[in-house]
Amino acid sequence: MLLRDLGEGGLIQRIRKQFQDSGVVLGIGDDTAVLDMPEGHSVLFCSDLLAEGSHFLRGLHPSDSVGYKSVAVNVSDIGAMGGVPMHFVISLAAPGNLELEWVDGFYSGVVRACREFNVTLVGGDTSTAKSIFVDVAMVGRVRKGGAVRRSGAKPGDNIYVSGTLGGSTRGLGLLRSGVSNDPAVERHLYPQPRHIHGARMGQVAHAMIDVSDGLSTDLGHILSESGVSARIYKDKLPAAPGATENEVLHGGEEYELIVVLPGTLEEPAFTRIGEIASSKEKHQILLLDGAIESVLEPKGWQHF
Amino acid sequence: MLLRDLGEGGLIQRIRKQFQDSGVVLGIGDDTAVLDMPEGHSVLFCSDLLAEGSHFLRGLHPSDSVGYKSVAVNVSDIGAMGGVPMHFVISLAAPGNLELEWVDGFYSGVVRACREFNVTLVGGDTSTAKSIFVDVAMVGRVRKGGAVRRSGAKPGDNIYVSGTLGGSTRGLGLLRSGVSNDPAVERHLYPQPRHIHGARMGQVAHAMIDVSDGLSTDLGHILSESGVSARIYKDKLPAAPGATENEVLHGGEEYELIVVLPGTLEEPAFTRIGEIASSKEKHQILLLDGAIESVLEPKGWQHF
Repeated sequence: MLLRDLGEGGLIQRIRKQFQDSGVVLGIGDDTAVLDMPEGHSVLFCSDLLAEGSHFLRGLHPSDSVGYKSVAVNVSDIGAMGGVPMHFVISLAAPGNLELEWVDGFYSGVVRACREFNVTLVGGDTSTAKSIFVDVAMVGRVRKGGAVRRSGAKPGDNIYVSGTLGGSTRGLGLLRSGVSNDPAVERHLYPQPRHIHGARMGQVAHAMIDVSDGLSTDLGHILSESGVSARIYKDKLPAAPGATENEVLHGGEEYELIVVLPGTLEEPAFTRIGEIASSKEKHQILLLDGAIESVLEPKGWQHF
Repeated sequence: MLLRDLGEGGLIQRIRKQFQDSGVVLGIGDDTAVLDMPEGHSVLFCSDLLAEGSHFLRGLHPSDSVGYKSVAVNVSDIGAMGGVPMHFVISLAAPGNLELEWVDGFYSGVVRACREFNVTLVGGDTSTAKSIFVDVAMVGRVRKGGAVRRSGAKPGDNIYVSGTLGGSTRGLGLLRSGVSNDPAVERHLYPQPRHIHGARMGQVAHAMIDVSDGLSTDLGHILSESGVSARIYKDKLPAAPGATENEVLHGGEEYELIVVLPGTLEEPAFTRIGEIASSKEKHQILLLDGAIESVLEPKGWQHF
């Protein structure tokens, strides 16, 4: 059965049945959703899109991974502000001749993400298009004044990163070469955002960001926003098993957290990789490999 | 100059410069925006996407119209709940070989919409894709308990519609035939949502929706959600100058409001077009043309 045989009305009914108990004032099925926010909190608001051919390939990535990831990447963004993810809307554009199986798989991935991250689908939009396009916008909450920005890093602060780096890019490479039963592939298809850790950092972190485009690029964002430089130690970087140096330094879609804070962080998931240094004009990453220091240019993912 | 010559980082810098004073806790440039909501209000949350080839044609629709419309359609949705639109995020996917002129035009349309509707851009995402996709997600506010749903219409209620119908579809036809200096074309390219009127309806309306897919389809949504039927009078329908019967009954992208309420509505912008009737199984629109009554099937826009 094709998407066009079901039609837009049929698709919306099908989605609505799967996401009934959303725990909000009003969920799917009206002009907008209606949500109540707890007092004393600010609203966090973001969006992330996945475009076929750029973020995923129809023949390579299972559709439930696309659905799952579209939610997970926003959960990661909310977590990287120190917040708690809550509700989201999905806009899905797809060709009318797309197999309904793809769409059903997509929404089963969304259901999985809702369960894992305790978030709810409350609305969205659908449309025809020549290729598949998914955009998720999410709202979350954070205590007033408690959002952790990119701009607060100070000279002397320590830099920590959660988990390991390089696994997702390695997983994509394995997937492309036909391997599917490797933990790196699982990590690439079903990333585990660190929002639970992120929500605990509001009290302690000076700056925070998630690794979506690669360590060199994302740490670079903290540096340019904070007006500082960083020194990181090559031998301290937590490499994923089998990941190359390039994958560790520049690999994207890791959804680990980079946390900058004064003092130490006693969390087993985090590794100290370096420290913030003062800088004048250029805000850059200095990579220390034993006694050799070099400038690490941002070589993570950039569109266009 | 092409979009790929500017790059993603350059594009984000360019957007950020244009939208600096957003009046929020934190706007463009971090993992998420941070917003404060006034007490005693619920959050309204929605998204609407525009896909090249489905909603607009690159050679036909000026890019500032695409930017303007992407915001306006969400403003209309918030207004149709009786709410006040506030902040939005834009996800834009486009080919790397797109002329930067198109992108600049797009954002100038967004700037115009921000001014006209008193809303602010606070974030979003960008990506490459084979064709252009735009998705806007918006949040607004409504007094707690004051959201006007589609499901509250009751037998005996009057049905009103704002402005005129059929103009946007007629405008698209004119635009396709090479006419550009007609008010219907202006209406198609730069629709005027009725959110100011919508926000005044919270106290009086039983049900409300905006005409995005056509009167027959959108009034149909109110009927199916409320479990009622409607009787509308052909000679009372406010046709746009030159619009055909088909354009009036089924033409989409009007962004007028359908308001269902007990008693009368003394607003010059609104015309009474019929009333709600009780129904058992089928919730349908009965169209009265003099003494002749017929069932009006929903023939508005449906994707796939």
